[in-house]
Amino acid sequence: MAKIAVIYYSSTGANYQLAQWAEEALKEAGAEVKLLKVRETAPMEAIESNPNWKKHYEETKDVPEASTDDLDWADGFVFSVPTRFGNVPAQVKQLLDEAGGLWAQGKLVNKVVTAMTSAQNPHGGQEQTLTALYTSMFHWGAIVVTPGYSAEEVFAAGGNPYGTSSTVDGEGNLQDDVEKAVKHQAKRAYTITKQIHS
Amino acid sequence: MAKIAVIYYSSTGANYQLAQWAEEALKEAGAEVKLLKVRETAPMEAIESNPNWKKHYEETKDVPEASTDDLDWADGFVFSVPTRFGNVPAQVKQLLDEAGGLWAQGKLVNKVVTAMTSAQNPHGGQEQTLTALYTSMFHWGAIVVTPGYSAEEVFAAGGNPYGTSSTVDGEGNLQDDVEKAVKHQAKRAYTITKQIHS
Amino acid sequence: MAKIAVIYYSSTGANYQLAQWAEEALKEAGAEVKLLKVRETAPMEAIESNPNWKKHYEETKDVPEASTDDLDWADGFVFSVPTRFGNVPAQVKQLLDEAGGLWAQGKLVNKVVTAMTSAQNPHGGQEQTLTALYTSMFHWGAIVVTPGYSAEEVFAAGGNPYGTSSTVDGEGNLQDDVEKAVKHQAKRAYTITKQIHS
Amino acid sequence: MAKIAVIYYSSTGANYQLAQWAEEALKEAGAEVKLLKVRETAPMEAIESNPNWKKHYEETKDVPEASTDDLDWADGFVFSVPTRFGNVPAQVKQLLDEAGGLWAQGKLVNKVVTAMTSAQNPHGGQEQTLTALYTSMFHWGAIVVTPGYSAEEVFAAGGNPYGTSSTVDGEGNLQDDVEKAVKHQAKRAYTITKQIHS
Repeated sequence: MAKIAVIYYSSTGANYQLAQWAEEALKEAGAEVKLLKVRETAPMEAIESNPNWKKHYEETKDVPEASTDDLDWADGFVFSVPTRFGNVPAQVKQLLDEAGGLWAQGKLVNKVVTAMTSAQNPHGGQEQTLTALYTSMFHWGAIVVTPGYSAEEVFAAGGNPYGTSSTVDGEGNLQDDVEKAVKHQAKRAYTITKQIHS
Repeated sequence: MAKIAVIYYSSTGANYQLAQWAEEALKEAGAEVKLLKVRETAPMEAIESNPNWKKHYEETKDVPEASTDDLDWADGFVFSVPTRFGNVPAQVKQLLDEAGGLWAQGKLVNKVVTAMTSAQNPHGGQEQTLTALYTSMFHWGAIVVTPGYSAEEVFAAGGNPYGTSSTVDGEGNLQDDVEKAVKHQAKRAYTITKQIHS
Repeated sequence: MAKIAVIYYSSTGANYQLAQWAEEALKEAGAEVKLLKVRETAPMEAIESNPNWKKHYEETKDVPEASTDDLDWADGFVFSVPTRFGNVPAQVKQLLDEAGGLWAQGKLVNKVVTAMTSAQNPHGGQEQTLTALYTSMFHWGAIVVTPGYSAEEVFAAGGNPYGTSSTVDGEGNLQDDVEKAVKHQAKRAYTITKQIHS
Repeated sequence: MAKIAVIYYSSTGANYQLAQWAEEALKEAGAEVKLLKVRETAPMEAIESNPNWKKHYEETKDVPEASTDDLDWADGFVFSVPTRFGNVPAQVKQLLDEAGGLWAQGKLVNKVVTAMTSAQNPHGGQEQTLTALYTSMFHWGAIVVTPGYSAEEVFAAGGNPYGTSSTVDGEGNLQDDVEKAVKHQAKRAYTITKQIHS
């Protein structure tokens, strides 16, 4: 068994959905899983200016927030984060930046990482956001396990070898059929995590 | 007026089509244009093993090949190249690598560059291939002008801010409606080129 | 004449120094310049836990903070930001993310951009941080003008074609001789900005 | 035990040296190793125009060339390739592109990969070349194991978390003291390879 933290950031729900599918697949595979949200750093007025954001914010109030302790705890991570101008959102970067102390102690080495994303346009930074995140993971000494084209599910979900991705409308609805690809990706990362952390 | 080299590599025709649309828009805008193909370096047996590749190879025999002299001649470039494993094809890299002499003489500085691409999967490296090409262009001291979201045409064509892209089937047929986006992108790059090279 | 916003984030002073050199060169070249810092989002206890950070924080209290109005105002940007795990700091990403409104109105199109960076290790993300920033700029429809190898100063400063970079010690002291490269880079970006925005 | 292919491209010897150190460390660690060079595709007149290139070409005539069979054979890869304009050389891209058949059969999934590089300038594309290569590896479904900051040797060698890198002079001489970092990186990748392929 290995410990996986599924860490997502979501404003209107799409990446929460992706994260939940990953959690489901990981539990089914026997992993010890924590589903954690990235702390919101936007001011309440920004959140309230968008009814869909406000709604999702309220609905997920009870999801625990990811802390550096969680980063330390996990053997592997499944990240699910939207793109913001072809890169991870500031909220997500904030969490990563806070791991400087763990990094200095070498505690992030050999963590297994895989990631998913979403964007408003079909080519709105899905690839860049994932590789930007993996670049940070290389600094951590993490082991990066992307789906590649390791299963039919990847092709069916748009063929993103860096991680499952979806176009999302303004209300947070996924426009692609990616559930199976998410589950495949999560299980694949879990298999590798077990091989390295047992 | 400014001089633009539209340089493409194509095995089954998709990027040739993108390049032709760019050429058409550039001529309409008043540019002095050369449409040039990247020299094929694959062995004839590889080409002949794929009837679509063979067909396209024969059909475009008379398109002139891009040389380092052409790289020197142009004020700006519109590249159109398929993705191969999330990066430019070896054939294209070969052309870029041959520009070492021009580079050493500083002759590539201030060239204006924009690029387009295609892949077999919707998220098959379209973003990575374009940014990999732009990274090389930064070495040249080129000025990189991507479409961003500068017009409705970009959204309609899949919203790729790094350059127009399309999914392509095995016979080289474009699966997205990108003609207008290509023309917008080419004209936009031409406008900037004129401002810098007049 | 054109308007340039020199926007930096700095915890211990290195990028403030780079930004000041850029400002100096731009004024000399006749630009209308604003030197602006990225708003600090770290909690005071984090700042106070590091005497060098605290000292710099106090010393630069009067430098105005960059706002989205400034992003709108400028014709071009010179960014100077440290690397955090091979990507821009969360503080910088926060500023970029806040530009969503400007972006939606198309007001960021054709901004000219160049960037500089620093890291604690010689190969600690200097290249990745700059290209990550440029990727976001492509979403804005910005025109990216890196130094390339357009002058001897670039080679003398470590030969980073994506932007001037330096290794920095824990007290914020630059370990490389980059002043001339910074000034060359800023002037080069200004020249292009004038050509596009006059 | 696991099988590792150390695959390098070198024109004047630097990456051959890096590859030999990797081979030495891998043998010491008990790996089954093949040291393989990437096939030269440059014309003889280009090689002969540079005495250092010619010399190295002659000296390594007996090193076997990497084939797609070797890509299939290995459980893991250590690549060592110079940068050419911030990306892998055309010769290296050619080898990768030829793996399309293996890729289509799913035979590249789960290969463990790590990479090293060199450039003529301290910031001449060392980071970009490595991440460009890893992007292609993500398409293969490979597992990417970079050194991160997993040992003191990494810091001592310039602190490149994506892979060991060195500046190289025109005669192929390494300007950095990277032998220990190379050996650490190779052994680290081997350890992970054994965990996944046993």
